[in-house]
Amino acid sequence: MKNDTITSPKGFLAAGVACGIKKSGKSDLALLVCPADAKAAAVFTTNKIVSAAVTVSKRHIKSPAITAVVVNSGNANACTGQKGLKNAITMCTKTADSVERIVDRKKLYAIRYTPNANNVLVASTGIIGEQLPISKIVKGISKAAEKLSASASAGLDFAKAIMTTDTRPKQAVRLLEISGAKITIAGAVKGAGMIAPNMATTLLFITTDIAISKPLLAKALKAAIGNSLNKLTVDGHQSTNDTAIILASGLAGNRPIVSRCPRYKKFTDALADLCDDLVKQMAMDAEGATRMFKVVVKGAATKADAMKAARAIADYPLVKCAVNGADPNWGRIICAAGSAGVKLNPNKLSCKIGSITVFKNGSPKKFDAKKASKVVSQKEHTITVDLGIGDISDFCYGCDLSAEYVTINADYHT
Amino acid sequence: MKNDTITSPKGFLAAGVACGIKKSGKSDLALLVCPADAKAAAVFTTNKIVSAAVTVSKRHIKSPAITAVVVNSGNANACTGQKGLKNAITMCTKTADSVERIVDRKKLYAIRYTPNANNVLVASTGIIGEQLPISKIVKGISKAAEKLSASASAGLDFAKAIMTTDTRPKQAVRLLEISGAKITIAGAVKGAGMIAPNMATTLLFITTDIAISKPLLAKALKAAIGNSLNKLTVDGHQSTNDTAIILASGLAGNRPIVSRCPRYKKFTDALADLCDDLVKQMAMDAEGATRMFKVVVKGAATKADAMKAARAIADYPLVKCAVNGADPNWGRIICAAGSAGVKLNPNKLSCKIGSITVFKNGSPKKFDAKKASKVVSQKEHTITVDLGIGDISDFCYGCDLSAEYVTINADYHT
Repeated sequence: MKNDTITSPKGFLAAGVACGIKKSGKSDLALLVCPADAKAAAVFTTNKIVSAAVTVSKRHIKSPAITAVVVNSGNANACTGQKGLKNAITMCTKTADSVERIVDRKKLYAIRYTPNANNVLVASTGIIGEQLPISKIVKGISKAAEKLSASASAGLDFAKAIMTTDTRPKQAVRLLEISGAKITIAGAVKGAGMIAPNMATTLLFITTDIAISKPLLAKALKAAIGNSLNKLTVDGHQSTNDTAIILASGLAGNRPIVSRCPRYKKFTDALADLCDDLVKQMAMDAEGATRMFKVVVKGAATKADAMKAARAIADYPLVKCAVNGADPNWGRIICAAGSAGVKLNPNKLSCKIGSITVFKNGSPKKFDAKKASKVVSQKEHTITVDLGIGDISDFCYGCDLSAEYVTINADYHT
Repeated sequence: MKNDTITSPKGFLAAGVACGIKKSGKSDLALLVCPADAKAAAVFTTNKIVSAAVTVSKRHIKSPAITAVVVNSGNANACTGQKGLKNAITMCTKTADSVERIVDRKKLYAIRYTPNANNVLVASTGIIGEQLPISKIVKGISKAAEKLSASASAGLDFAKAIMTTDTRPKQAVRLLEISGAKITIAGAVKGAGMIAPNMATTLLFITTDIAISKPLLAKALKAAIGNSLNKLTVDGHQSTNDTAIILASGLAGNRPIVSRCPRYKKFTDALADLCDDLVKQMAMDAEGATRMFKVVVKGAATKADAMKAARAIADYPLVKCAVNGADPNWGRIICAAGSAGVKLNPNKLSCKIGSITVFKNGSPKKFDAKKASKVVSQKEHTITVDLGIGDISDFCYGCDLSAEYVTINADYHT
């Protein structure tokens, strides 16, 4: 493995630079390029208000091949009307131009065809309601294109440039072998870390060199997101900008995956594992979070009920505060389950904190509070609730709510 | 008006005593008695897990007349199984016995018929999952019955004894005249103040001397709650114990209200005004809350959408933090509206903070940030969001989220 970054899989170049969007002078423009063209798939926010970048990328993802992804941090380009849309398109056009020129000159890869704006995806994260400083960004794209590289440090630069309030870059890599071919999957994510307001965006970028059909790539991404990103609830809301993108260069040398065969399963397992890793890094880096927890809901009547109850528990401020205080407060968990609006049997309702049964068949169980507190005080623990009404289960991840979250979010001013 | 408490309307006696449930020694047992028997109506929590008191009161409210309400604080009698149920019934039986004996001896009122346990309502609030100290409570009921009085101080004692983490008793009175008869409506409420965990209960008790039919009383209560208590969201959850009860002694001398006539309308208006007053007192006394706000959602496709969007905004931690910091952060409001899962037109979406337009037809508007911050820093302000898709509106109340809320809820241990 040449490195642990998004440039690990064969066929990817990356860069991250500071172009002046962030007043801090930190890096705020990132490029990811697949000169050989990638099959691509994406999942976007379900928020009804979407950023200009999301609007444009939703259109461009329909292209049969994607050459590049351009990302800016520090400005969400959301709620910015027609001008915002024009700026997002400008970012794509400028990226296509710069990448073509640079990649060609450097002879880094043989270009299969001339990239155009339709083959470029764009993502933004940062403050809502302000127009992009587009001339700075245009210059930044040229600068980033000059720095494009397959090195590990270029991958790290990418991971850093997409950060807003994240305290650290978050990356992961998985290796697997499919019929003798070595496959690499890599990802970089920026956070559910909502310390500063209007920056509550999740951006996930995954690269892989596997050869796979576009429909199956899309299916794999959707499944992986469903069991990772979509399971993480920090404050119960999706931002205007949430975007997850996967690019597959197809250069690993495997026989292309075109059906849901065992090889496909092997790939999706590794992809799911990668996403799980990234989402846990996100949870731990969430707004002032000190620890995370998994809520497993069993015995539900439907999948929707299981998810609804799990989220209700993970989002309940009093549960989040209890976890912050290492308090095995099952009363709050039961209260949240009861008010989730799902079918349950009060006489069969049960709850475990870690492996400790604290509530069984509708009645409290005596337990060692010190031991239970120790469980909650871990970096990660599991809360299990059995609704006692069916046999369906689901889960989600949550993180604690700290006084720091409130202080920072109250003190920041628009 | 003889006083400002729940004993203001004709025909009510109250008391509040300390019986030893609370370790602090503060008062924790309250009685409200209508010796002439009251028409009664009640609204209970929609949480699927309900306290033993709620289970019992749901049954007893079907009685044609209610003689007394017994309330304990400091213990929720929730998640306590069959024993808890038996204890709740014991509270009713003991109250019926004591009240009969005392009221008869004191000749305070002519008893129309012997009260029995079925004519007594019970409410509990406090810690979940612990059995009631029932012998203490039984003694407390005797003690409280001895102190029953129609005085203002007895009413205040009642309002104090139902408190858990509330910082002050919350009461209100409204006077009205219906066809020459003087009608009084009074209420006492305990809080949405969820500073300590497992105590997240709203208990509302209303007394009135109006003569009205039971079905219309129920209808009036439901409507008033719908526009007050049910509009207040502190953390988006209903407790296992939430209860609102209204008792009408019928002693005001008005011709009984038996239809939805103008006199009924006059009564419901006054009742709604009383509840609005009480709910605002609750919001201001909520867990570490420093200010409250009203969210008005207009232009919705349906009533359900309007309510859903209003609650999504009022419950959004980032909006609550912004209000705490007097920050006119419209981006968070728009983000919450967009992710509420309701129909909206992004190109017509608009938002006002107080009377200041900050977002109009999908685009940000320039506004005086200092002026807007002043609006948010008020004890109460209004956020208006127009979804731009229909002509239905609804509203809800929220309160800010302070670092104190988190600190206290994290530090408290079960």
